[in-house]
Amino acid sequence: MGSLHEECGVFGIWSSDRINAAQVIYYGLIALQHRGQESAGIVVCDTCGPIGNISSHKGMGLVSEVFHGEELEKLRGNIGIGHVRYSTAGGSIEENAQPIFLNYAKGTLALAHNGNITNAEEIRKELQDEGAVFNGTADSEVIAYKIARERMSVASIEEAAAKVATGLKGGYALLLLSPQKLVGVRDPLGLKPLCIGEIERGYILASESTALLAVGAKLVRDVKPGEIVTITKDGIKSEMVLKSDKKAHCIFEYIYFARLDSKIDGISVYDARIRGGMALADRYPVDADVVTGVPESGLTSAVGYSERSGIPFKLAFAKNSYVGRTFIKPTQGERMSAVHMKLRVIESVVKDKRVVLIDDSIVRGTTIKNLIREMREAGAKEVHVRISSPPFLYPCYYGTDVPDNSLLIANEHSTEEIRQQIGADSLGYMCLEDLPKMTGDLPLCKACFDNCYPV
Amino acid sequence: MGSLHEECGVFGIWSSDRINAAQVIYYGLIALQHRGQESAGIVVCDTCGPIGNISSHKGMGLVSEVFHGEELEKLRGNIGIGHVRYSTAGGSIEENAQPIFLNYAKGTLALAHNGNITNAEEIRKELQDEGAVFNGTADSEVIAYKIARERMSVASIEEAAAKVATGLKGGYALLLLSPQKLVGVRDPLGLKPLCIGEIERGYILASESTALLAVGAKLVRDVKPGEIVTITKDGIKSEMVLKSDKKAHCIFEYIYFARLDSKIDGISVYDARIRGGMALADRYPVDADVVTGVPESGLTSAVGYSERSGIPFKLAFAKNSYVGRTFIKPTQGERMSAVHMKLRVIESVVKDKRVVLIDDSIVRGTTIKNLIREMREAGAKEVHVRISSPPFLYPCYYGTDVPDNSLLIANEHSTEEIRQQIGADSLGYMCLEDLPKMTGDLPLCKACFDNCYPV
Amino acid sequence: MGSLHEECGVFGIWSSDRINAAQVIYYGLIALQHRGQESAGIVVCDTCGPIGNISSHKGMGLVSEVFHGEELEKLRGNIGIGHVRYSTAGGSIEENAQPIFLNYAKGTLALAHNGNITNAEEIRKELQDEGAVFNGTADSEVIAYKIARERMSVASIEEAAAKVATGLKGGYALLLLSPQKLVGVRDPLGLKPLCIGEIERGYILASESTALLAVGAKLVRDVKPGEIVTITKDGIKSEMVLKSDKKAHCIFEYIYFARLDSKIDGISVYDARIRGGMALADRYPVDADVVTGVPESGLTSAVGYSERSGIPFKLAFAKNSYVGRTFIKPTQGERMSAVHMKLRVIESVVKDKRVVLIDDSIVRGTTIKNLIREMREAGAKEVHVRISSPPFLYPCYYGTDVPDNSLLIANEHSTEEIRQQIGADSLGYMCLEDLPKMTGDLPLCKACFDNCYPV
Amino acid sequence: MGSLHEECGVFGIWSSDRINAAQVIYYGLIALQHRGQESAGIVVCDTCGPIGNISSHKGMGLVSEVFHGEELEKLRGNIGIGHVRYSTAGGSIEENAQPIFLNYAKGTLALAHNGNITNAEEIRKELQDEGAVFNGTADSEVIAYKIARERMSVASIEEAAAKVATGLKGGYALLLLSPQKLVGVRDPLGLKPLCIGEIERGYILASESTALLAVGAKLVRDVKPGEIVTITKDGIKSEMVLKSDKKAHCIFEYIYFARLDSKIDGISVYDARIRGGMALADRYPVDADVVTGVPESGLTSAVGYSERSGIPFKLAFAKNSYVGRTFIKPTQGERMSAVHMKLRVIESVVKDKRVVLIDDSIVRGTTIKNLIREMREAGAKEVHVRISSPPFLYPCYYGTDVPDNSLLIANEHSTEEIRQQIGADSLGYMCLEDLPKMTGDLPLCKACFDNCYPV
Repeated sequence: MGSLHEECGVFGIWSSDRINAAQVIYYGLIALQHRGQESAGIVVCDTCGPIGNISSHKGMGLVSEVFHGEELEKLRGNIGIGHVRYSTAGGSIEENAQPIFLNYAKGTLALAHNGNITNAEEIRKELQDEGAVFNGTADSEVIAYKIARERMSVASIEEAAAKVATGLKGGYALLLLSPQKLVGVRDPLGLKPLCIGEIERGYILASESTALLAVGAKLVRDVKPGEIVTITKDGIKSEMVLKSDKKAHCIFEYIYFARLDSKIDGISVYDARIRGGMALADRYPVDADVVTGVPESGLTSAVGYSERSGIPFKLAFAKNSYVGRTFIKPTQGERMSAVHMKLRVIESVVKDKRVVLIDDSIVRGTTIKNLIREMREAGAKEVHVRISSPPFLYPCYYGTDVPDNSLLIANEHSTEEIRQQIGADSLGYMCLEDLPKMTGDLPLCKACFDNCYPV
Repeated sequence: MGSLHEECGVFGIWSSDRINAAQVIYYGLIALQHRGQESAGIVVCDTCGPIGNISSHKGMGLVSEVFHGEELEKLRGNIGIGHVRYSTAGGSIEENAQPIFLNYAKGTLALAHNGNITNAEEIRKELQDEGAVFNGTADSEVIAYKIARERMSVASIEEAAAKVATGLKGGYALLLLSPQKLVGVRDPLGLKPLCIGEIERGYILASESTALLAVGAKLVRDVKPGEIVTITKDGIKSEMVLKSDKKAHCIFEYIYFARLDSKIDGISVYDARIRGGMALADRYPVDADVVTGVPESGLTSAVGYSERSGIPFKLAFAKNSYVGRTFIKPTQGERMSAVHMKLRVIESVVKDKRVVLIDDSIVRGTTIKNLIREMREAGAKEVHVRISSPPFLYPCYYGTDVPDNSLLIANEHSTEEIRQQIGADSLGYMCLEDLPKMTGDLPLCKACFDNCYPV
Repeated sequence: MGSLHEECGVFGIWSSDRINAAQVIYYGLIALQHRGQESAGIVVCDTCGPIGNISSHKGMGLVSEVFHGEELEKLRGNIGIGHVRYSTAGGSIEENAQPIFLNYAKGTLALAHNGNITNAEEIRKELQDEGAVFNGTADSEVIAYKIARERMSVASIEEAAAKVATGLKGGYALLLLSPQKLVGVRDPLGLKPLCIGEIERGYILASESTALLAVGAKLVRDVKPGEIVTITKDGIKSEMVLKSDKKAHCIFEYIYFARLDSKIDGISVYDARIRGGMALADRYPVDADVVTGVPESGLTSAVGYSERSGIPFKLAFAKNSYVGRTFIKPTQGERMSAVHMKLRVIESVVKDKRVVLIDDSIVRGTTIKNLIREMREAGAKEVHVRISSPPFLYPCYYGTDVPDNSLLIANEHSTEEIRQQIGADSLGYMCLEDLPKMTGDLPLCKACFDNCYPV
Repeated sequence: MGSLHEECGVFGIWSSDRINAAQVIYYGLIALQHRGQESAGIVVCDTCGPIGNISSHKGMGLVSEVFHGEELEKLRGNIGIGHVRYSTAGGSIEENAQPIFLNYAKGTLALAHNGNITNAEEIRKELQDEGAVFNGTADSEVIAYKIARERMSVASIEEAAAKVATGLKGGYALLLLSPQKLVGVRDPLGLKPLCIGEIERGYILASESTALLAVGAKLVRDVKPGEIVTITKDGIKSEMVLKSDKKAHCIFEYIYFARLDSKIDGISVYDARIRGGMALADRYPVDADVVTGVPESGLTSAVGYSERSGIPFKLAFAKNSYVGRTFIKPTQGERMSAVHMKLRVIESVVKDKRVVLIDDSIVRGTTIKNLIREMREAGAKEVHVRISSPPFLYPCYYGTDVPDNSLLIANEHSTEEIRQQIGADSLGYMCLEDLPKMTGDLPLCKACFDNCYPV
């Protein structure tokens, strides 16, 4: 039900053909739009032309709001990077839109970043002491500036990136564009995803494989944790510069962030969610007539639950897709609540039925409470709630925006108390020990559930 | 898959309380947004204040784009009407946005209209000969002007409306707002829907019952074909001024236009679609492993097909909800098609499976063709297509915008030819004689299928 | 030098021809633009058409910013009123733009107002107690509302206006537009100007005669203090409803507000200023080589001074007309001051010369101080300053926005002290007893100089 | 009366202090705004900071429309260039706004240009054949691109500029900004003006000296025809790279383009115009009562005429400064003409008088014709017209936009015919042989009068 915020999506392309890179990036970003709806941007460079022009455009809003035919047409070049943003660090202001694009004494540098750098403020202060002036408040600008600073004294952008990356803490996937190169950097723990795709005479780097499919590219592999890949006219070069014995992939990519048709670090997101639903069915079986999920993110787990339990899966909600970002939330009494506007229970599905209702998480609990009440009003005899993630107990420092009050509800109330609050007949959260059923033996970061931060 | 265009939605409220009518209308329009995304507007009147102020606001775009807190706050009044529009007659220009709001010598008049008046051009010419000047090109402005003209010589707005309505041809549901009254008019055939809701000290008139539910009102009944209802401080008054022996409710409200949770002329839209899917299962059974539908409109019929056939229902598509109105359609080769951007087949669902795929209609056939090809590429062994409406063979004159080429494909090609074109293993369209299975003995207009126009 | 703010300008037209009233009003307002640059608006009514449509448009900014071809084209009608505004009462917000346009139970009413109603707040409270809700904060909306309220119980708009006007205090010129009539009201003291013009088959009411000339109309006469004129298809009707023995025309219309080519209450503004300059020459003669004025408002008095004294008149300043409303004022040191950007002394004119410099008023004194210093730097041997108005000592309650600190400088400093502060060789203010030399025996309001308020 | 269009204005600054260059450029551009009102732009570089950031902003409209506090604040740097544009080559589109700012493989390059390159299209084609893609249609972008191209193979930007300039034909003043340098180039004939100013720890290059005064700088000298000046932290370097025996300064800078308080190539613009008026008085004496000029450009010549003839100078027009760029021109009959809206004759000045009226040029003749008619209607007994430039007979290829029909009127009609057309009692144009009375022995380009093009 959209309670957690995605972070950011990055997409880069290098082609030796005279292709229209901006157009490919546009479709790549549309495919990654679920990762960030706050701003979008594209920077391209024309390595085929006589002087190597570089151009850029970015703005607040969705990809389709920021880019129209006109803007795309002005972005001429065969290599480039793009970004969609949800603000994790730095406020929601235009200056924080990415890619960060620097014009400086050594030329130009563009950077697109997904993740969170926990020591960005220290670096910012250090640079400000040297005289740096920043336009925005985001950690991404700090990294870009730091790399430009480093580039004043080393020979290549990837060398500068390697030097800077060794000093970064946190989780990140970075794309850099210099006039001739596309560089990708993934944090040593592998917290943030980044994958490599292949096109006819070039390569793509993207946050999720769905973006490769969207533009007709083939998934080659994921960028390895701690790896820096540099793509030039001489092909792709890999360096393992950031060493770490430990890996810690973010479990939330599978539970919530990534698109159903993506494959991340070898595991299909759809399959992981189906298996999550099955684990819930095993752990919390119940005698019921119908299984359903809260659209969109609860639906796949519901299908898994249905498959394992044999209880038929139905779509129980009529969804109003026009209740969006700019919708004015109702204030005058709860009958006209936002969730009531967005999702309406279909009477014929639930009337006189015992219902299993699956959602991906509980934040404040008001959404699920409203839905359960509506189900009862529509005639449901019982409503059994299953949640496809464990309760949030601890904050995330790597870029996932867990609302404070969702930490609160799970910390301050027992499952039984929450069940009573939301008015369910039964309530079951995914168990910590069942998570491996979703993702197998992939090493995970699940600090928000168990307080074990990987660094 | 959105091949047909909805028409318009209307919503009116009369309350003797000092309620904020604009806010209620806002939520009512959000609930009717699926009926028209081109423009939105609200007019309210304050019958409680000392001089009876009237105010209005409208604009191009979605309800949430046209109305922000600021605009709503300026609309002060306890009675009012609203409108969402998809252009059926008149081009897509700001001047055609509704409600039409006239300031004229007798005062003010607002009108909101769903439908199509087939003799509007004659009336327009007649009025222009008398000196009328129109701002826009829509039939709605012509009706409003005609009613204002009539009002110069009769005593009440409902009397003027009755006089004008007797001269109108076509299908329509009209709402009128004068400084003290809310008037609703439904065409004598009942082509366009209009229902009455009740709130604590007032009434609502709306295109669909889902809008009543959205604002916490109770469905009283549908306005009868040919009925004029007038709501004032003396309550609700009904007059059957437009006589017709025949009724002809538009079948497309059930197949496609209306929301799943609406009930129109006594029949639940969800139930009608489930029964449609069942009829398809009876008529075109097939040995298969999974049933799925093209989101959103094909999904409910797919559930019906699954229930009747016993073949499990699955969600086979990952949907990108950001591929919207302003999305730039791909042009360079079919791998990056708009449908490919919007809907991605989930491999795990269809791999090595025999699939039944249900959609509501076939227009040019390119969408379904692309989806079938993607399914095969994802490993589907067989793809059997079922369409929950008969083929379009004739144009609609009452406000449904059937694209010309959809008439063409069904007129010029046999079902077998279309099956080959789209690459399906089998193809079955809803049979004309099965339509009563959806809606029982309700008299229907199905002229677009059988050429039997009700007038 | 623009130290005082003009108030507002009004323009109305009634024609029995099918003319385009909006276009005439547009040019009339352009001609009155000097009276208000904050907002502009037009309301028209089509008394020739079958239903008497009324339409309106207004917005923040200059006439040419608010009205483009498109907006004008939509305003169809042969009678109408327009307004340009400088905020005297009520803040600078869009809601205060005029004409005020009310849609109410009795129809529509538009009002355009120049002046200030000193008891508006009492009336506002009274109406609010009855349930009135106001959109803006201006006194004009209060008057319009009050007239609409009165109109609920009397037979005509001019009757309602007469009733309301008897209760108004302050200075005002009002235009009212009802669907068939144009009404003009002037306050009983004649504080605010309003004149009547004649066109082929109609009449014009305007704040200044320059607006009549602009649109090719002939000045008939000024509206008399306390007169209400009503223009309908039966011609012009005059009623002297607001009695007052005293008249008190605002001296500032002649000194500063009105355009040079206007004639107000029988006196040419140009001639008044020439005579003002002559009075200064008589009162404060000086041996000098050149007379000049601070553009634009000081120039005419300078010509008068030159004519009387025989000292040649020269243009001593190169003016930068691009230093306008949105200009960012310099902050870093006085060399780049706003006045330095706007007016540059031409060395050849003043070098080695004794200069007489005339301005219309001294507010803070910084402008004239800067100009004097620049003159000396350009080589002027002496700079003698003459001011064509007496010093401001008291506030204006009738709509003239005298800055507080201009009252201060004259109250707290002697003329000699001010001369020293601004660095002039001599300084002479217009004497109170010389004002009649400008305007003859016209009864004047000069309360801002002598504290004798007419009411 | 604004019949000719100015061209462009350029302004550059180099300071070794940490000054806010953008703010200084802003005021410099405001002072040069009369040279171009179509677009404005600023590019700055921070040579004091650790990485040498470069930033830019430009847009359509006046300086004060394009730059607000916000935009200025984002432009951080101590060196920079700015531009105001009137389109001479290339259409009026955003892409043609200057400075041209290139991001290319060697870094960044900004260029601001006043003038017209007659062989730009050849160079454009040549570059396009090599693969260049241009955003706009202006010659300036071609030059910038060509310099960037040259810079790929030479060591410095001034060397690249010198190489490119030797291939340019036409008249031009160029400013270039690379991350460390400010470069100025003036065409070998000196057709376009460019001067050098000095500030505390730096230099300024500007089109006119008025811009130096505006920002508190001291005029050092004019850049010599054919000179390239390069300003770096090592001071100012001069190279005479473009040789030419001939000089040809544009006479129109003195007659019309430049501001009154500018001094160009050693001659004061005000003095030149005064002398022009005197030459007219000598050549065409007349018995009259008053001399006046068409504001603004005719006024100074009128003062000169008055001084020489002894006939008193008066201001005869009330000017409406709100009749500007976006003003909708009247179409319905000539009484409401644009010139009538803009300039109104003051009756008291001309009534019963014999008037000498001076303007700078005659284009179509309608303006002066209207003014003469108005003067007669206001009671003038005689109107004698004097024009402070010879008639245009030939087109200008160096950047002055002489309207085609002004060439026409002077080519197709004798002075006597024109006098009759405009309704003057007598008419005298400045004589070609009198031009040296304005500018002494300065070598002039006066090809538009005498067909003697300097190249």
